[in-house]
Formats: sequence, structure tokens, C-alpha cells
Amino acid sequence: MLPLQLQPQSHIPLYVQIRDQLKALVHNGALRPGDRIPASRELAANLGVHRTTVANAYAELESEGLIRGHVGRGTFIQDNGELKLTPAPPVLGNGGGVRWETLFADERGEESLSRLCQANTADVQISFAIAKPPSDTFPVEEFRASCNAVLKSEGARILQLGASDGYAPFKEELEETLRGEGILGKDDKVLVTAGGQQSIDLVCKAFLRPGDTVAMENPAYPGAIASFTGARVRLLGVPVHATTPIGGHAGLDLDILESVLLQNRVKLILVTPDFQNPTGTTLPVAARRRLLEIATRYQVPIIEDHIYARLRGGGGRIPSLKALDRHGVVIQVDSISKVLFPGLRVGWCVGPANVIERLRLVKQVTDLHTDQLAQAALAEFMRRGYLKKHLNKMRTAFARKLLVLEDALAKHMPAGVEWTRPGGGMCLWVTLPPGLDSSELLIHVRDRGVLFSPGRFFYFQHPAPNTLRLSYSSLDERQIVRGVMSLADTLKAEMRKRLRGAPRDARPALALTV
Amino acid sequence: MLPLQLQPQSHIPLYVQIRDQLKALVHNGALRPGDRIPASRELAANLGVHRTTVANAYAELESEGLIRGHVGRGTFIQDNGELKLTPAPPVLGNGGGVRWETLFADERGEESLSRLCQANTADVQISFAIAKPPSDTFPVEEFRASCNAVLKSEGARILQLGASDGYAPFKEELEETLRGEGILGKDDKVLVTAGGQQSIDLVCKAFLRPGDTVAMENPAYPGAIASFTGARVRLLGVPVHATTPIGGHAGLDLDILESVLLQNRVKLILVTPDFQNPTGTTLPVAARRRLLEIATRYQVPIIEDHIYARLRGGGGRIPSLKALDRHGVVIQVDSISKVLFPGLRVGWCVGPANVIERLRLVKQVTDLHTDQLAQAALAEFMRRGYLKKHLNKMRTAFARKLLVLEDALAKHMPAGVEWTRPGGGMCLWVTLPPGLDSSELLIHVRDRGVLFSPGRFFYFQHPAPNTLRLSYSSLDERQIVRGVMSLADTLKAEMRKRLRGAPRDARPALALTV
Repeated sequence: MLPLQLQPQSHIPLYVQIRDQLKALVHNGALRPGDRIPASRELAANLGVHRTTVANAYAELESEGLIRGHVGRGTFIQDNGELKLTPAPPVLGNGGGVRWETLFADERGEESLSRLCQANTADVQISFAIAKPPSDTFPVEEFRASCNAVLKSEGARILQLGASDGYAPFKEELEETLRGEGILGKDDKVLVTAGGQQSIDLVCKAFLRPGDTVAMENPAYPGAIASFTGARVRLLGVPVHATTPIGGHAGLDLDILESVLLQNRVKLILVTPDFQNPTGTTLPVAARRRLLEIATRYQVPIIEDHIYARLRGGGGRIPSLKALDRHGVVIQVDSISKVLFPGLRVGWCVGPANVIERLRLVKQVTDLHTDQLAQAALAEFMRRGYLKKHLNKMRTAFARKLLVLEDALAKHMPAGVEWTRPGGGMCLWVTLPPGLDSSELLIHVRDRGVLFSPGRFFYFQHPAPNTLRLSYSSLDERQIVRGVMSLADTLKAEMRKRLRGAPRDARPALALTV
Repeated sequence: MLPLQLQPQSHIPLYVQIRDQLKALVHNGALRPGDRIPASRELAANLGVHRTTVANAYAELESEGLIRGHVGRGTFIQDNGELKLTPAPPVLGNGGGVRWETLFADERGEESLSRLCQANTADVQISFAIAKPPSDTFPVEEFRASCNAVLKSEGARILQLGASDGYAPFKEELEETLRGEGILGKDDKVLVTAGGQQSIDLVCKAFLRPGDTVAMENPAYPGAIASFTGARVRLLGVPVHATTPIGGHAGLDLDILESVLLQNRVKLILVTPDFQNPTGTTLPVAARRRLLEIATRYQVPIIEDHIYARLRGGGGRIPSLKALDRHGVVIQVDSISKVLFPGLRVGWCVGPANVIERLRLVKQVTDLHTDQLAQAALAEFMRRGYLKKHLNKMRTAFARKLLVLEDALAKHMPAGVEWTRPGGGMCLWVTLPPGLDSSELLIHVRDRGVLFSPGRFFYFQHPAPNTLRLSYSSLDERQIVRGVMSLADTLKAEMRKRLRGAPRDARPALALTV
């Protein structure tokens, strides 16, 4: 996937943006002579622009000698003289150091999102941008007591080099919990990791080679997209239905998933059945059984992201894929970051013993093992019953915040705006009327001290620019209401501008995929 | 690099071992149809066996249809019917799950070492195998007080999601220390990582694509070899001189390094100038300046592993490559694991600002950020002056242990055995008389409750089977003496057996590369 970021609202024509960004990728070394670039039809579909726009950009690049098409093989970056490295040994002038930029391996997709969210954070009063628990509810004293107790009783053991599969007392607590939830089967093992993001990184290393194919939800968690992109994997997107279609169900479209598996050699499926990030949708239990049946039939393992599952508002439970799995096709990744303390980096994977052993070897090469102080203190925190207590408190608090958010949206949002009803988790997904771009809305609403995540950042294919994600978990009820009011006011102003006949840009209408 | 492990002492002929291990790699999916395998000459050199041995193995595999040579192109794994996947959608019998073994991406080199060291650990009384500080000297109470204080004063901040470059108060302490040591220059930045192993992993992700070339010491730290192998990088070995050759210096051979850079397009150089693991050698300051001059001239950055540098026995200091660097060609990786608490996974990278920013983005995709409790507690531990005090104590203690070890070796080892004089660090490197194999010695000495690391595990090319590494840091003085006596007794017994005319196997004599 080429890391192109188009600005449809810009005065610079789209084909010039594509041309110049491709040039930049060649000059900074992200694209090298001999690299194949996507066919114009394929790139156009990915960027959501007309094929002619891409064809124009390619024509200019070819006339400049930067790319060349080969009949039946594709289009490739040219090996022209300008790009060649000087032959070794080069003679350097005074002060000549290494040109590091030309040595970097890849552009990182995460970069732009991280820049956007970090910009002007001092002026941001209300941020719907990041899914994290609120600091003011942290049971810090209970944690300090737990930490103190374990350092007194087992300090030297905690601080010494440990086992790569996790600190034994924490693993025991965790295994007991997971067994009680029907997640840890008798042939399963657990690997402690440094959180959900690392679990995905380990899965990439254990299973994927460059060019392998992964099927996953589109839109999806940008951290997962970035992991797979970094592993040079081909991602195939399966749409997520934000609302229940006639005769279907919300969440991952299983008919399309099955077509994808039939038509491609897919190595893994990544899916978040509960409160999917970013859409907040949940896969019903019948669909979960069908998903397992499909995965087993095609022999394609499922990576189940279980990170939000314990945050169901009502407190009830839908059995996880791992709990329903009878054939050992699921690896479940989970973490304490969403329910407790994200500043401690502790997560885990559950799966068949041979898979966990392989992941353990990969973990060892990645960072030897997870920090033991955090694990030991969490074990004590769990033994004392603090985790259960806190989780119940958070469930209730988040459910109330979600109600406040849904009420505010219903009260203030203009007609034509739609949103999901997650029933738990940390995120809600908003769809604006077609033709509106949430990235533009963000620029305006940020001036009023409000931040959210534009939908564009969650898509790796066919972005729907008129979508956005609201994370409500770390805000209080007043902030939620005020934030929604600012958002609604700004949106109404934008819609009025359009009605008054402001010239529409030449951007093609985009089909919604959620 | 093919992960073949030959047992020269085995009754199974070497060519059969090679044949069967290659078969296993094909059957478990590590080698796939179309994969190229090394030329017999190359593999023979890597394994330290006659070319005919490899040629015999290849001939059998070709006659079985498993591999095929193509003139001018090389030898490839064949796409024969037996290996083909069943076409989708397959029909599965009852209980049919996923065949996970066929999905794993690579064999991991680290596996065999980890198995060996974990085997029968209950019977091991004296382990020279792992380079770690002794638990009984840990200042646990001082650490607990530090931990308590920071959880009281900044608990909610520590436990909340943090910045991917590190917890600010810890970074400030670290930067002050590094500035005082002349390591952190004015254009440099610091990235906090989860330890030295992760730093190397991040460097791989930020700089290396499959097929890129890295030059590094041979023998080297197996964790680094495993990281680069996992990144599908070609490793070029530069010999390390265990003793000072005439007209030369101990440590990395810079003449060979320069030849390697002239003859290959090398992307990075990895080097441990102080107390190199496993050999314990240190690069003199003049050689450090020459290394920097070479790296600058060829525009190849240096990754400097600084993990043992603070453990110099006398307490004096040789300036690090980073401190000597005038052209911004060095990234230094370092960690608290060797001087303090390896159970806390905290390390860092220092380098030019644009490099650290790129590594930060990669870190974010890898695991968001490093655990903040460990960072916060370490910051307080440093502010209170505990780190300096403990480091001085460890330096003195390790220097005394090293003296005891060197005395015991001089007193008990038979003639013909040689070893390095590290002057610090945690490891000493022993060379047995040619023809002896330290892996075999390990099997015998393990029966007497003693463990060490055979030299074989540190080589990625041209293994010298008659070498071994002794890590003395976690043993007390009595254990060191008893361990050396067991080792010497066993070795003498083996040498007597050989003198009595036990039939020598057909293994070719191996040139020593250290």
C-alpha cells in the first residue's frame, strides 16, 4: 500500500498531489528502482479518485523518466542516473555525515495521525480522539499497596531476568480468570506480552512473510494496519456494517469474507468481534459461529482482538470466538490497557500450545520478556479483588457516558447524520451526509478546542471521508455534551455554506462501505 | 542463513544430517517451493564442513525431487505434488483444525540455545551460561522506596497512556547523565525502549528490508543475530581478535571490515566496542577513531552496543564511539539490564534527532511505549543517587570475580587452553586446543552440575567449535573456583581419551577465526 495522503479540499489538483507524493517517495528511498507500483485502476480505487486522475499523474511521471510501464508486467520505478548512489568509496567534504533519510526502510502510515493528534494539544479542551480510560478514576492507592507488597515479598525475583512467557505468579492469576471465562481451554497456553500492539507485532513476525496476505476489517485499528504494513503484507479489506442490513447483521460482512478467502490465498484473518475499533459494532453469536466455520473450512486462522470485550455496558457477555472455537483456529489477543492502566504495558495472547510456544520464541527475540514489576503488581491487584471491583465501576461509568453521548447526538446533530449504537467499548462511529469530509470538519472544530479522529485514518482501502470516530471514555459528561454541541454547530455551519452554493470540488462521490 | 545444527560427534553421517534437516525445513514450511538454497560451496563454508559433504546431501535431495539446480541461477526447492496445499475449499473430517506448523514464517535460531539452557536447570548448581547481575546484591529496599514515592506523587500520570519516546521525568534524568558523559550531543535525541534487545529490533524495522546487508562481529550476541535473521537480512561477519595480533589490536578486525564495505553494499555496521559479547574484548581508542573514519567515508551508519561499557573494572573510561563521533554516524543502544535490574525492561537509543524521530514512530507501531512504572521508579532511584552507588559497588564486585576466574583458569586449565583478559563486563572467552568441541564438553560437565555457553551459538558463519563463553557475574567466588575445577577436570579427561587413541571422526580441521 502506497502511503499517499490526498487533500481533496486543497487547491492543488489531485493528479499533481499524486505525482509529487510519488516523486517524494522515490527521492526519500521509500520506493526504489525496480519497485512495482499499483496499476492506475487499483490505486484509483484505493484513493477513491477517478482512474483518469491517477493515469494523468502516471503519464507525467513516465514523461519525466521516473516510472515505466512494461506490457503484461506492470509499472515500475525506473533506474535513472540521478537516483544512483555514488560508487564507494566516496570522498566527503568537511562535516559530511551520513544521509540518514535515504537509509530509512519505509514510510510509516501512523505518522500523520500521530502528528495531527499531537498538534496544538495545549489548546484542546475536549478530545474525542484517543480511546483510553480516565485517569481520575484510577485506583492508584490500591495499586501502590499491591506494588509495595510484592516488592517486599518477592523483590529480588521481580527485578531479575525472567521467563519470556511471563512472570509466573501473574500468569497463574490470568490463567485462572481465563479458564473461568471459558477462554483458556485444556490444550491452550498463555503468553504475556507488552500489550495489544505488541501482540499483533509478534503475530506478524511468527506467521507472515513479505507478500503474504491478511484479511481484516476495513475500517480498522490504525495500529494493526501499521503493523501489517510494516511487515510488508498485502491487506484485503472486508467491510464492516455500521448498521444491521436487511437479512444481515452488523459488523464484519461474512459473505464478502468468504469470497475473499475463496479468491485469495489468505494467511490470517484479524477481527474484533466486540465493540470493533473504530465502528463500535459487535458481531452476533450466530455470526461468530459462522465465522469459525468459514475459518476452519478454509484453514485460515483467526486473530481475535478481545481488548474491548469486557466493557459491555449491561454486564452480560457474548461468548468470544476463542470460547466458541472447537477446532483450535483462534488466537485471542487481549490487554489490561482498556479496562485498567494503559501506562503499564501488559497484555497477553491465548491459543493452542504449539502456537504460543512459537510466539514465545519470537517474543524472546523481540524484547526478551515483559517488564516484571508491572506483572507482579497486577497479580497482587487481582488477588486482592481490586480488578473485578474496578472493572464493574468502569462498565457502569462508560455506559452512562455512552448514553449521554447518544442523547447529545440525537438532540444536536442535523438531519442526515447517523451513528452506531455500540452498547459498550470506548468508541462510537458517526457518518456525515455524503460529500462532507470529516478531515475538513476537524480543522474547523479544532479551533474551538475539540478533537476527534477522522474516519479516513481507519481505512486502508476505499476511505469514506464522511465518517469519524468519537471516543468518549476519558471525558466527563459535561465535556461530552459541550463537545457534541461544538461539533454540531460547526457541522451545521459547513452544511449551510454548501447550501449557499459554494463551488463543489471535482471530487467524485464516494460509495459508503460501512 | 539456513538454521542447520550439525552434531559432528553424532554417529549419523554429516551429509545425512544436512539432508534430513533440509527435508524437515521443507516439511514444516520454513522452506517453500521456489526458495533458493545456498550453493554447496557457500553452505559448506558456513557449516565448516567439506564441500563434498554438502554436495552429497544435495544429490540425494535432487534424486528425491525435493530440490533442483538451474544452471547459472542456483538451486531451488521444487514444487512437487506432495507439498501442494489442498485446493480451497477443503472438506475436513471431524475435529480437523488448522495445521499451525505449516503456517509459521521462519525457524528461529535462538530456539536451540534456549532449549539447552533450560534443560535440567534443577540439576545445575553453577551456571556460567547467562550474563546477568546477581540478585542478592539488588538494592531492593531502595528501589521499593523510590517506587512508593513516585506512585504517591505522580501515580495517575504513570498509569495513564504515555509518550512513545519515554516517560518525561526518566528521560530528563537519563539525558542529564548522557550529556555529562559526552554521549548526548546538542543535535541528538534519546528514545526510551524496552531494553537492548528491543533497540536492535527497532533498528531492524526502521532501516532494513529483506535482502539488505549488515556487517557485524562474528562471533556476536545471539539475540542480535536472531533479530537480523528474523528481519531476513544478509549478515556479513567481521572476525573479532580475542588476543592482540602482531601489528594489530584486539577486537573487530578493521582491515577486514573495510574490505567488506568496499566489496558489498552494506546498510549498517553493528559493533560492541566495550567487553564485546561473547569475547570480552575491547577496541582501543585509536581503532575507534579509525572505525568512525571508515564508516563516515563509506556512509554506513554504526549501531554501537554500549550495554557493558559502564562495567569497566578499574573504573576508568575509554570514550565511546558515540562520544567520539563528529559526523553523526552513530546510534548508541544501551540498557540498565547489565548494571541494575534486568527484570525491568528499560533501555534507550541515542542518535541524531531525525533518526530518533524515525525510531520513535517505529516504536509506536511496535508497542506504543515502554512501561512507565519502571521508568518513573528508575528516575527517582537515579535522583536519589542510588544508581551511581550501586554501579560503583558492582564494578568492584565484578572486577574481583573476574580476578578469581582468571586465577582459577591459570591454576587448573591444562596446557593449550587460552582465554581473553576482558578487564570488565560479564564474559570471558575460552579457546580449547584445536579438534576439541565445547558442545561435547558441555554434555559431560552438565552431569557435574555446571553449565556454560558453547562458542558455536555465537557464530553465524565459520563456527569455531573449540570455543566457549564463561559468564561470571552472577556467581560467587567459591562457585567460580568450583566451576572452573569441574570444567578443567572434565576437559583433562576428554583430552586423555583422545591421547589414548580414541578414533578421531572425519570432521575437517577448522581454522580459528578468533
